[in-house]
Amino acid sequence: MPKLRVHNFTISLDGYAAGLGQTLERPFGAVPDPGLHEWMFATRFGREMMGEDGGGEGLDNDYAVAGDVGIGATIMGRNMFGPIRGAWDDDDWKGWWGDEPPYHHPVFVLTHHPRAPIAMQGGTTFRFVDGGIESALAQAFDAAGGEDVRIGGGAATIQQYLRAGLIDDLHLVISPLLIGAGVRLFDHTDGVPDGYTCVELVCSPAVVHAHLARIDS
Amino acid sequence: MPKLRVHNFTISLDGYAAGLGQTLERPFGAVPDPGLHEWMFATRFGREMMGEDGGGEGLDNDYAVAGDVGIGATIMGRNMFGPIRGAWDDDDWKGWWGDEPPYHHPVFVLTHHPRAPIAMQGGTTFRFVDGGIESALAQAFDAAGGEDVRIGGGAATIQQYLRAGLIDDLHLVISPLLIGAGVRLFDHTDGVPDGYTCVELVCSPAVVHAHLARIDS
Repeated sequence: MPKLRVHNFTISLDGYAAGLGQTLERPFGAVPDPGLHEWMFATRFGREMMGEDGGGEGLDNDYAVAGDVGIGATIMGRNMFGPIRGAWDDDDWKGWWGDEPPYHHPVFVLTHHPRAPIAMQGGTTFRFVDGGIESALAQAFDAAGGEDVRIGGGAATIQQYLRAGLIDDLHLVISPLLIGAGVRLFDHTDGVPDGYTCVELVCSPAVVHAHLARIDS
Repeated sequence: MPKLRVHNFTISLDGYAAGLGQTLERPFGAVPDPGLHEWMFATRFGREMMGEDGGGEGLDNDYAVAGDVGIGATIMGRNMFGPIRGAWDDDDWKGWWGDEPPYHHPVFVLTHHPRAPIAMQGGTTFRFVDGGIESALAQAFDAAGGEDVRIGGGAATIQQYLRAGLIDDLHLVISPLLIGAGVRLFDHTDGVPDGYTCVELVCSPAVVHAHLARIDS
């Protein structure tokens, strides 16, 4: 059975996935600099994603790479696509991910506002789903053609899928910094997300990797 | 200068230091079993604290031991002393820590309700402070006679000292379990606690150790 997976989702030591006040210039809101994702930009995988050479190998890079393996489609919340709220008045906005987004497969964006698909360079197509998380998941599994589906984020999207008990693998990264206020990953989960156990817990010099898996998966 | 230190303070992966509903039988409220502090009970230090043989050495034990070194007095919040709220109607209650508490030095209990000191076996004396956190800290430094002072917990007490900028060293342990609801350590801190940096980040097979220190200390 194909799985629903979350990878490399990074939170601060105080549990925040993003600071307050997302804007066009600050996709992660008010966070310290260097920020939550510095560990990723320091890996070879992260550098390649930005079209750059260099970057480290080792544990962090291994986890970064693993997040792409066997993934045939991605789901993301609307705030991970862009800072626009409400209706799509600006059709020129094609996401935060550049002309050639680092997905190379169908990406389903959760929204309450229908919009025509956008085909980007390199094989990524953004598809806008206004039918809820289960509809998005069914479409994503269909598009993935037998491969797994990944939830890119953000926190609110992961929370919705956790509440529905739909996530099989949840790989978290803890960056040891304090943000103080923002969007917590573990919030609004209606108690303990059911049936997860920690199957890997390791540190690089930079971050903690914690991999939760469903006990039955 | 003697320091104010926190050691071995354990939180869940979702950031809770305790579950909801503290009672006499459940000092940490509703938490999974095995709980947050299983890692400590598995160390040689933890076993000795309970008067038992055995227990593991290695990283977790080293951190557990280090929390006692150079400490001359401890401060704790009232809920870490017992489940009683309001006035001290029951003078027989001498805390959750047994006849011979594992402190062996003066312990200052924050409360709004005065109570006479209680001398326990093994050198621990519980002193009840109703003058606020700075008064308790001054008394604790005085009693420590040049050694450092430790805050035992709980979360609300650490938050008060963080807000006041008084903590020099904050050693946290992250247990990779989810509690779902309870008392978060990083809450009510009025934004980012100022001037901390992570100076150690390591994992044992069981837990993460994260040591934050004031940049100027």
